[in-house]
Amino acid sequence: MQTVTLIPGDGIGPEISSAVMKIFEAAKAPIRWEERNVTAIKGPGGRWMIPPDAKESMDRSKIGLKGPLKTPIAAGHPSMNLLLRKTFDLYANVRPCVSIEGYKTPYTDVNLVTIRENTEGEYSGIEHVIVDGVVQSIKLITEDASRRIAEYAFEYARNNQRTSVTAVHKANIMRMSDGLFLRKCREVAENYKDIKFTEMYLDTVCLNMVQDPTQFDVLVMPNLYGDILSDLCAGLIGGLGVTPSGNIGANGVAIFESVHGTAPDIAGLDMANPTALLLSAVMMLRHMGLHDYGNKIQTACFDTIRDKKVLTKDLGGNSKCSEFTAEICRHILKD
Amino acid sequence: MQTVTLIPGDGIGPEISSAVMKIFEAAKAPIRWEERNVTAIKGPGGRWMIPPDAKESMDRSKIGLKGPLKTPIAAGHPSMNLLLRKTFDLYANVRPCVSIEGYKTPYTDVNLVTIRENTEGEYSGIEHVIVDGVVQSIKLITEDASRRIAEYAFEYARNNQRTSVTAVHKANIMRMSDGLFLRKCREVAENYKDIKFTEMYLDTVCLNMVQDPTQFDVLVMPNLYGDILSDLCAGLIGGLGVTPSGNIGANGVAIFESVHGTAPDIAGLDMANPTALLLSAVMMLRHMGLHDYGNKIQTACFDTIRDKKVLTKDLGGNSKCSEFTAEICRHILKD
Ligand SMILES: CC(C)[C@H](C(=O)O)[C@@H](O)C(=O)O
Ligand SMILES: CC(C)[C@H](C(=O)O)[C@@H](O)C(=O)O
Repeated sequence: MQTVTLIPGDGIGPEISSAVMKIFEAAKAPIRWEERNVTAIKGPGGRWMIPPDAKESMDRSKIGLKGPLKTPIAAGHPSMNLLLRKTFDLYANVRPCVSIEGYKTPYTDVNLVTIRENTEGEYSGIEHVIVDGVVQSIKLITEDASRRIAEYAFEYARNNQRTSVTAVHKANIMRMSDGLFLRKCREVAENYKDIKFTEMYLDTVCLNMVQDPTQFDVLVMPNLYGDILSDLCAGLIGGLGVTPSGNIGANGVAIFESVHGTAPDIAGLDMANPTALLLSAVMMLRHMGLHDYGNKIQTACFDTIRDKKVLTKDLGGNSKCSEFTAEICRHILKD
Repeated sequence: MQTVTLIPGDGIGPEISSAVMKIFEAAKAPIRWEERNVTAIKGPGGRWMIPPDAKESMDRSKIGLKGPLKTPIAAGHPSMNLLLRKTFDLYANVRPCVSIEGYKTPYTDVNLVTIRENTEGEYSGIEHVIVDGVVQSIKLITEDASRRIAEYAFEYARNNQRTSVTAVHKANIMRMSDGLFLRKCREVAENYKDIKFTEMYLDTVCLNMVQDPTQFDVLVMPNLYGDILSDLCAGLIGGLGVTPSGNIGANGVAIFESVHGTAPDIAGLDMANPTALLLSAVMMLRHMGLHDYGNKIQTACFDTIRDKKVLTKDLGGNSKCSEFTAEICRHILKD
């Protein structure tokens, strides 16, 4: 048994979390859940921090699974998602986008992974008013973070039987910052001669992506570009309801999360689709080396979607979350 | 007769420019072309500038039509496209994306316009090395430029029978800079109660865009977001070969341009597709109040594409640029 810190989250979070727990139970996945709440609190000196018992659990388990968290409205209150990434230095945001058989979108055979630098860039949070009516935001790019994410991307490609890495940038405009990022990618590429390396402007990637996403494999990029491109790619395969995400740090620390919202309008109504959180949990199992359990659960989930018999509303059916969950469990048990 | 400064550009630029001139002649459009070259030169103090005779022509004509320009490789040499936008303070980049009947893409009924702030933001060009291995790029947002582009977007919507304007931002991350941009959009929206105003995160726009682009009408955004989104949208309707673009300044000054590359591999081979430059020239005619000529040429171009009889290779046919051009002229003359 390995322990995982479970952050159910807000809105539909608790429902989809319990769906995942049921499915894990059916699959006999050797996971012990430690549930924690992560509403931000004000620590010493007025800095926002996640509650000590959640931090302590994560420090011990190293692995988290997280549902959606509502965006705080208090001024100065940080996004909890960002605070978590920062607290545990989760420097790589990994989002596989793979076409799901039976779930129709304008694209087929999409099979790519966006790898986003998760700690700096446009998300540095440094902004100033220069004079009245003139504001600047600082995009911070460091050699260390750029090298680290580039290495992560190439290692990921190699370990996942992928053949190419594309560095996404605007070094024609941000010559120094994106230039540094790109230079580090090029340097790291030298050590991975088995992986094809290409570079492409962000605008060109967007254009090519909607024209033919099958040309892409692994993509690596600074923070904001990853925010944009990962959502774009999610759209190609059916949206945030079906796309998993992992935030990876050093020494095995990682938090896997569904990136959709809390859907307060349907919260508590047993209507939510747990697929994104479930597939994130599958990523988590693989990260923990539990590939067989991950594969078993993923197959059951995809089989259920392909069968089209028991689907939640957003997937085109009219079943409840609990019925969809039970159907996935049935697929697991029947094997 | 009105004078237009024609910048044929590099690679396929001269071919597609002469195609446009032929078509304008067939349509008897009352335009006198003044051809100018715009290779950047070094002015006093070593600053890059466009040649005085090109500047002088533009200052007089106020209207330019521009083919693709090759990206300079000399260090410190600016992008000519950016230098032109800057020299004439062309603050609004306008790119209509409308599905073309008969040209198949995964989407139909796309009919939207991206309006991009063209002078500041991430394109400020201000960058520093803080310490070795740490670089910052500055994104500059001003109240004046934000208000100006917001006003442009709402005026555009009203004058073009469009019903909604969406402000695209990441004010959840760049609270001060994108926050300022968004605040100005909100303020301006107050004066246009006939136009529906919405706000959306850039990542959400990308996601929604590939899932259902028909939900969008006019979109307004800071510089980099416009660079990304305009290419994405071009991809939805067939790519840069068929999408027009206009850079608009104050007092009627404007440069219309095809935004595709110089395609050096097919330059001089009579294979290029002049559609993007032609549709940019149509935007130009409308900007000059010559709507009837613009409509006539646009109809002839779209009819030729719908007929599918005489098409360039990239449009799925095997005709030469000159044949495609002649076919458009035939459509014009037969009306
Ligand atoms: C919630 C928000 C702060 C976040 C981001 O902008 O990174 C989200 O869009 C994401 O991609 O995880
Ligand atoms: C050529 C390049 C500098 C330019 C930009 O980044 O703005 C281009 O991509 C565009 O959109 O016109």
